[in-house]
Amino acid sequence: MRISELAQASGVAVPTIKYYLREGLLPPGRATSATQASYDDGHLQRLQLVRSLVEVGGMPLAKVRAVLDVLEDPAPDPYTAVSEALAALPPYVSAGPPYERATAALDEIGLAYEPSSYAVAQLEAALAGLEAAGRPLDAGALGRYAEQMMVIARREVATVEAQRDPAVPAELADVVQDVVLGTVLVEPVILALRRLTHAALFRERHPPGGAG
Amino acid sequence: MRISELAQASGVAVPTIKYYLREGLLPPGRATSATQASYDDGHLQRLQLVRSLVEVGGMPLAKVRAVLDVLEDPAPDPYTAVSEALAALPPYVSAGPPYERATAALDEIGLAYEPSSYAVAQLEAALAGLEAAGRPLDAGALGRYAEQMMVIARREVATVEAQRDPAVPAELADVVQDVVLGTVLVEPVILALRRLTHAALFRERHPPGGAG
Repeated sequence: MRISELAQASGVAVPTIKYYLREGLLPPGRATSATQASYDDGHLQRLQLVRSLVEVGGMPLAKVRAVLDVLEDPAPDPYTAVSEALAALPPYVSAGPPYERATAALDEIGLAYEPSSYAVAQLEAALAGLEAAGRPLDAGALGRYAEQMMVIARREVATVEAQRDPAVPAELADVVQDVVLGTVLVEPVILALRRLTHAALFRERHPPGGAG
Repeated sequence: MRISELAQASGVAVPTIKYYLREGLLPPGRATSATQASYDDGHLQRLQLVRSLVEVGGMPLAKVRAVLDVLEDPAPDPYTAVSEALAALPPYVSAGPPYERATAALDEIGLAYEPSSYAVAQLEAALAGLEAAGRPLDAGALGRYAEQMMVIARREVATVEAQRDPAVPAELADVVQDVVLGTVLVEPVILALRRLTHAALFRERHPPGGAG
């Protein structure tokens, strides 16, 4: 397809596509003349990924590039490949290990983890933030949040596996892309629903327009 | 207490406290001499709030000020006061109503909502992002996420209510502050735990160091 058709299929404007091409976030099309090139479904998929990372994830281009680098040349070990891609996703946490609050809580909950992983660093920052605000969260409360997240995670894994043809082994780059998109695109859904369920409960006790 | 003691009690550096004072995010202390002022517990609490919004929420000062404005002078109706404070929190979504995807899905799920609320706008943006990436989420899947979030929200409400003395009516500004902090500080915990539960499940199927 031509660049105008790629724009139409993706909903991304032509100048933005040209910008991604210049920045190397989208591989060049196949030249069909001195001024025109042809793009395929691979370009469309890559464009959808880049757009999700930039627009939904709010990621800077350097971090988008880090995800693409993993997709181009993933570590042979799937756990490492996925971890490297997820490390490029926000929130960006500056403190280094040891993550004492997070690891102590995860040990008490009984959830397996890599001590140096970004998700542990993010949990540490979140727990430190609660503590600094004078609202520490104990391991019991954290464990109850983890239970609900485990229900969600198990269902998500089952859904992905049900959609996959077991006769065709999954390409590692596809697995990494699934995990990245499932993180960046679904997190805002979960947070919006937490706010909406709270609003619905609050509304039951304090109908809008009432004074107390 | 003096500004150095406020810094120690809050963990916020003196230059940052002075910056918040200049920006009007922290009310001035009671002058005790030409160059010194005294601060109280109200200052400490306000400082903890501002720090949470800036450092954990990543909010620009104009949005922090919008939350403080609601706390200074909340609308008499609690639902409106809380909604106005939450509207200042990220993610910042630019598209206006109608939020067709979100309201159709919420109607199907059976969750009550205010059609113009920011949480509905955020859900709409999240659903549009999934659609643009070629991974639309149907109302069934959304309803299952909402179920888990409702479990979490009900427990959170019960915890807050158990900590409150029923003989003392809650100050509206305190209710608003509780909801704001419960949103900004707990959201990163929930997301970190979703990533950690996924990592634990992935690790079961693909032990680190293995090749497939």
